[in-house]
Formats: sequence, structure tokens, C-alpha cells
Amino acid sequence: MSYNPGPDFLAHDIRVKPELDGLGALGDLGWYCIRAILWAADYNLPSSVVALPGAILNDDGVILSCTASLHWPDSATTATFHCSFLSYLSFDLTALGTRGSLRLRDLLIPFEEGYGHGRFTEESALDFGEKKEEKRWCPEAKEWKVESEERQEVVMVREFARLVEEVERRGGKAERRWGIVSRKTQLVMDAVKESIEGGYKIVEI
Amino acid sequence: MSYNPGPDFLAHDIRVKPELDGLGALGDLGWYCIRAILWAADYNLPSSVVALPGAILNDDGVILSCTASLHWPDSATTATFHCSFLSYLSFDLTALGTRGSLRLRDLLIPFEEGYGHGRFTEESALDFGEKKEEKRWCPEAKEWKVESEERQEVVMVREFARLVEEVERRGGKAERRWGIVSRKTQLVMDAVKESIEGGYKIVEI
Repeated sequence: MSYNPGPDFLAHDIRVKPELDGLGALGDLGWYCIRAILWAADYNLPSSVVALPGAILNDDGVILSCTASLHWPDSATTATFHCSFLSYLSFDLTALGTRGSLRLRDLLIPFEEGYGHGRFTEESALDFGEKKEEKRWCPEAKEWKVESEERQEVVMVREFARLVEEVERRGGKAERRWGIVSRKTQLVMDAVKESIEGGYKIVEI
Repeated sequence: MSYNPGPDFLAHDIRVKPELDGLGALGDLGWYCIRAILWAADYNLPSSVVALPGAILNDDGVILSCTASLHWPDSATTATFHCSFLSYLSFDLTALGTRGSLRLRDLLIPFEEGYGHGRFTEESALDFGEKKEEKRWCPEAKEWKVESEERQEVVMVREFARLVEEVERRGGKAERRWGIVSRKTQLVMDAVKESIEGGYKIVEI
């Protein structure tokens, strides 16, 4: 996940100031990468995280670009992500399974404003039996479009308002789900930062 | 780059036998990943290579799945690749530059038999000025199709025959280019294997 906002952003934006959004590209873009990876891993925390050599920091020590790798105890599940303020626009998510894959091109913000949620493609070994195009030796990816009458930001704010209302006006308790998911994302993010600061060491979670 | 050839392959294929194609998925699929990365880096060798924790080896010690990361001395250039006999078909190449990107979906073998070379998509900051679709806030990827009257395998064998003829029948010298490129690919591949065997240590090249 990357975008290249240019020199003015890199000099003045809050995302590159240590006393403001001090986690830089990791906090801004890496957050989405980590959350998406946790989503794909059923929100099971990885057992270890390691950042890869070559992270780029600005003069104030804020991360402008980094890559990291996450590992689960079963050892068959791994994930890598790259987040950067120095590369051209890229919001890719690729999930590879044993018998299929998912790809999403606009994880952060839909490239098309008109539709609610987004599009993704799915490929599956199950489709190998029913080849339709003679020219292809493997099945074509299926494109899925998740329609919604509202944009994802509207859905997000509505959900937030509903959660607040539940506590403030109905005497309910806070839903634990969001706190747990956010906390897990933060734990992994902190581990990536610790790995970079420790010379790309492996950090156990 | 991955494919999942199933239990019969994993038990009997030459690619999983230490005395035959003993480099396993790294030799079979990683070779293409490394070559493609070297191509994108103008065939400049990385200064260091590190494999990521979580490589999967069979009982004979042959690599079935691994991930690695390559680094160049300027530190702004990095690359990662994943190669596996355990995940669904995936021949992706993504190259991110400062102001543009390239994506290729069928690096190893064209998914469509009918055309000669292949397709790729290109995205560029240069296209931001000329938005055509009002619904999109960023330019659509441009799709390029490289046509050829012959399949890539034919072109490869013809080039090989030409090289041999040049030496055997015309008294020429061997072209150094191919040997250099192959040797560089092998060097990086050996470094990845050394990194795995050394507990995912950083290997200088």
C-alpha cells in the first residue's frame, strides 16, 4: 500500500511529524495492511513479526517506507506488507490460499466513487473443471462487486453512532469487538516499529 | 509465484527430490521471481538477501515454500518474492516506481495460449491530468498487450539456436549477456538458500 504525495507533504504533513502522527507511513498505510492481514487470518495474532531491511526514515526518524513480514505458529500462514509515501498509488491486497485466491485493488479507498463498497476478484481450483474459453489453460478470475446504497464512510460513521447511542442512551455496554480488533492491529504495528528500531530483529508477540 | 500441484507431485516429482531438482520451489518458481526482479533492477545485483521465517521444507529438506527479500545499497530499492508449491496458481509481478507501476499476472506462462507474449497493465502519475471517467478519482490502469506471431517458447528456442549457430558455424564467440544474467540469478538464489539454512540470516552478496 503506497502513495507518493510529493515534497510538500513530506515536509509539512502531520503524518511525517514525530510529535503528531509519529508512526508515519506505518501508522497511515501500514495500519490498513495489518488490519487486512488480520482479517484474512481470522483475527488470530501472529506469533512473530519482522521488519525487512531497507526501511526509509526522515530526518526526524519518522517512517516513510517499510516492509514487514508476519508469521503464525502453524508456520503455513505467512504475510508480508509494504507501506510507503515514496511509491506510486497502490492499494493492493492479495490473499493466497491452498485452493484459491482473492485480489483487491483498492483496499484503502474505492477508486470509483460511484459504488458503495468495492470490487474484488476470486480465483478457485473449483473452477478448473468448467473451463469455458478454449484459449485459456486456467480459469479466468471472477469479479465480484459489493454494492451498497451508501459509501463506506457513511456506513462507518453510522456504525460508530450506533455504538455510542447503545451506551449513552440505551444503557448498553461497549461492544468488545472493535476494541479487540484495533488493539490487535496496534500490537502488530508496534512490533513492526520495534523490529525496525532493533535493527530488523524478530519480535515475538 | 505459486501453484499447488497436489499430493502426487509432492511425493514423486523431480522438483521435490534432493538428488534431482534439489532447490524445490525456489529453483522452479523462485528462479523466475529473481530473474524478474533483476530485470526490474536493470540487472544490478542486490547487496544483501534475507529469507523470511516460515519456509516450508519436505522431509528430505527440499524447499516447498519460501519468501525472501532483496536489498540494494541505495536502500530505496527493495524487492520481495514468494514461491510455493502449496498455494493456488499465482504468477504475479508488481513493480512500483516513484511515479508509476507495472503489473503482470502471468509471468511464468501466458494464461491465454492464443497470443505470443503477454499482457501487462501500467499506471502512471502522468495520467492524473487527463482523467476521463468522472467517477474515478485516479486514472484507470492502461492495459498493454505484446503481440507476437509466435509463442514465447518458440522465440526462446530460436534465440538459443541462433546463439549456438553463431559459435558453431560462424566462428563467433558466445554472447556474454545470457551467462551473466543466469549467473546473477543463481547467485541470488543460492543466497536465499543460504539464508534459510542459516536460520534466516542476512546474506551479503
